Amino acid sequence: MSKQVAVILSGCGVQDGSEIYETTLTLLRLDQLGIGYRCFAPDIDQQHVIDHRNGEVVDGERRNVLVESARLARGEIEPLTELDADAFDAAILPGGFGAAKNLSNFAEAGADMVIQGDLVEALAAFHEDRKPIGLMCIAPVMVPRLLGPGIAVTIGHDPGVAGAISSMGGLHRSCSVEDIVVDFEHRVVTTPAYMLATRIGEAATGIFKLVDRLDELMDL
Amino acid sequence: MSKQVAVILSGCGVQDGSEIYETTLTLLRLDQLGIGYRCFAPDIDQQHVIDHRNGEVVDGERRNVLVESARLARGEIEPLTELDADAFDAAILPGGFGAAKNLSNFAEAGADMVIQGDLVEALAAFHEDRKPIGLMCIAPVMVPRLLGPGIAVTIGHDPGVAGAISSMGGLHRSCSVEDIVVDFEHRVVTTPAYMLATRIGEAATGIFKLVDRLDELMDL
Repeated sequence: MSKQVAVILSGCGVQDGSEIYETTLTLLRLDQLGIGYRCFAPDIDQQHVIDHRNGEVVDGERRNVLVESARLARGEIEPLTELDADAFDAAILPGGFGAAKNLSNFAEAGADMVIQGDLVEALAAFHEDRKPIGLMCIAPVMVPRLLGPGIAVTIGHDPGVAGAISSMGGLHRSCSVEDIVVDFEHRVVTTPAYMLATRIGEAATGIFKLVDRLDELMDL
Repeated sequence: MSKQVAVILSGCGVQDGSEIYETTLTLLRLDQLGIGYRCFAPDIDQQHVIDHRNGEVVDGERRNVLVESARLARGEIEPLTELDADAFDAAILPGGFGAAKNLSNFAEAGADMVIQGDLVEALAAFHEDRKPIGLMCIAPVMVPRLLGPGIAVTIGHDPGVAGAISSMGGLHRSCSVEDIVVDFEHRVVTTPAYMLATRIGEAATGIFKLVDRLDELMDL
């Protein structure tokens, strides 16, 4: 049987959900390596809906994270409460502001953030079983609260976000867009992706490295 | 100066807009080849909004094609009326039902379809200037009406859609998901993508071939 990876989404669109290119490139690389995947998302309302032309909140509009994530998964999506770590060898969280607005409230609360309960529960089982976890873009900011202190991650080199990671007990490592940070002890792999990418090809290079490294870690 | 390609979108999601993976893979390959691109979409309402979990129409919900396409373009989107063929070397239309629901009404009207006016105008200039045009998935069904009769295209091997293409004066060629159909005389390149793809890696192979061939045609 092929390896199986759970991909956890937070909507569909960089400003209020999962970053679309990061997610697509993750799935592409998994498939190219012969790794199976299933997508999950929490069945909750988005924090808000952003008009991606101008970055402004659309007053009065509500969208559901699971329903919008279904766009990004071509309908093949399951509620995050259904995620059973026993059926998977690893988990990946693409970025996008959904990680900081729907999966957590980092965008509002900074280092005082709270992480969405279904996500905490789902990832605890992966981490306890020493299954590797990959996170990209802004998603690694959740690691100190989600997986515990003392884990090395990167979000590129934004001083504000790096400082927040440190103040929560995490370890931040600066990293270029085409590279990854690997915490071998805690089995966590991160890459800056669209925290730094100016072209989709740059993001692809870092994301492909992240998926390749997770593939190796699943064998160890 | 690098080559420039116009990518024309129809929303964000396979059931009521542009197919997300097809679009992302197109942009990835363009960038990998050092080709610049800009994204365009018509400023019109979507035909409807589909809940991508279950494929059902969401009653009473309205979304705008340009606004939703902005998600897929990370905000870098322009109205289709602003597309000046003189600034580009080629055009690409990803698929998704948006091509059959928003850019045309093929999904409802079949061979009696009408194509959205801004698209007709934008692509006429490309075709008159013999600039190559790439279309994927269901989008090639528009070719007989959009560019004229007698142009060879593929949508895979669906007999109903192939028959509609023929009845409009087009030429349909059966094609596998990992291959392309090239009409050298009319400079049109097509690939089945998610008309046939069962895995994202298959779609990528055909789409990368399409972009590579357009790149060659831009030199001829």
